[in-house]
Amino acid sequence: MVSALLFDVFGTVVDWRGGVIRDVTALAGTQVDAAAFADAWRAGYGPSMDLVRRGELPWTKLDDLHRRTLDRLLEELGPAGLTPDDKAWLNTCWHRLDPWPDSVPGLRRLREKFVIAAFSNGNLSLLVDMARRAGLPWDAVFSAELFRHYKPDPEFYRGAVELLSLTPPEVMLVAAHNNDLQAAAAQGLATAFVARPAERGPDAHRDQAPAGEYTYVAADLEDLATLLGC
Amino acid sequence: MVSALLFDVFGTVVDWRGGVIRDVTALAGTQVDAAAFADAWRAGYGPSMDLVRRGELPWTKLDDLHRRTLDRLLEELGPAGLTPDDKAWLNTCWHRLDPWPDSVPGLRRLREKFVIAAFSNGNLSLLVDMARRAGLPWDAVFSAELFRHYKPDPEFYRGAVELLSLTPPEVMLVAAHNNDLQAAAAQGLATAFVARPAERGPDAHRDQAPAGEYTYVAADLEDLATLLGC
Repeated sequence: MVSALLFDVFGTVVDWRGGVIRDVTALAGTQVDAAAFADAWRAGYGPSMDLVRRGELPWTKLDDLHRRTLDRLLEELGPAGLTPDDKAWLNTCWHRLDPWPDSVPGLRRLREKFVIAAFSNGNLSLLVDMARRAGLPWDAVFSAELFRHYKPDPEFYRGAVELLSLTPPEVMLVAAHNNDLQAAAAQGLATAFVARPAERGPDAHRDQAPAGEYTYVAADLEDLATLLGC
Repeated sequence: MVSALLFDVFGTVVDWRGGVIRDVTALAGTQVDAAAFADAWRAGYGPSMDLVRRGELPWTKLDDLHRRTLDRLLEELGPAGLTPDDKAWLNTCWHRLDPWPDSVPGLRRLREKFVIAAFSNGNLSLLVDMARRAGLPWDAVFSAELFRHYKPDPEFYRGAVELLSLTPPEVMLVAAHNNDLQAAAAQGLATAFVARPAERGPDAHRDQAPAGEYTYVAADLEDLATLLGC
């Protein structure tokens, strides 16, 4: 019955923590704890989107929310003395995240049988840059920016289903995050949990296991392709 | 300065007339003049979008505008006796259009250097189905449906530039149609005219030559790739 798969991107398809650590280290060397910097940057993600959700900020692209958090962190954690070009380059590290090793081969297999689309809070240009660099073979890119509603707002899930000219049960969200999958299920979409135990580093415990009744539970995207008969 | 290329699709990248003739013939054989049917269906395209533009119809996907015209033409031109499944299949012939011979190799070359995106009045699912079938290697698919404004409304051109996080002169519209290119130029985009003399059949004269000062004029998409140093 499912004919299209939507993929959460940050954490599910690409390794945000490793990519941020790599680029912070490239600029700052050992002047800052790059892992702590990455975790603090990502910790600012939800609260910054909440400002938009509550109307305390007008619609703001994720690149610009990332930059607000980055500027604060550079003051708090350093390094000092970055040039404007350095800061602009660092802010786009989210465009340069690497896929998990199974992501590209898994997506290629899944695409033989299903329409596959990015479904992310990242702005459209971020997702396009990432897909070109990483070789993610999307049929379509659904950004929260299209609807001016960040996940888990229901408008984003419903809007993607409408653009696909499908009904909710014909669309499945694939994600490593329970809150995203629960929001999709609440709109009637099918759901697939993919475990990404390394997403938040060695000491994190969140989203290590499915916390709901999902349509599928997979070890990674290659495993999902096998479960779906691809 | 240009870093992204937007492509008109019907006529510029794919051969709508040949695809409609093929599928009308498959259903109706010699009962109807398939070329006349294709031309009449396409002639309904502008007026049906005008109903939306003037507010006489609420926002309506192109698939549904095509179906309104199709139902009228089946009464006027035949064939009689099509089943509901036949009619639904025929209406999606616009999802099954073939690219011009230079389109896929030209797009592949252009994509090495530029972000390339569909920019079409077709609904998103139509464009995704077409790209999968024809192997069009889009980085992004911009449908009028995203903005609920059909070309040549300026909202569509401005909206695509905003989603690309670029300025108008950094984006170039590639099209075989003077009205589309003139609307893009009015919004500050760069423009490339591509000649498609066979688009409307052997007796048509519209858009055979550029009717404005465009940034580039190319014989086809391979030629455009050469002109742009790809």
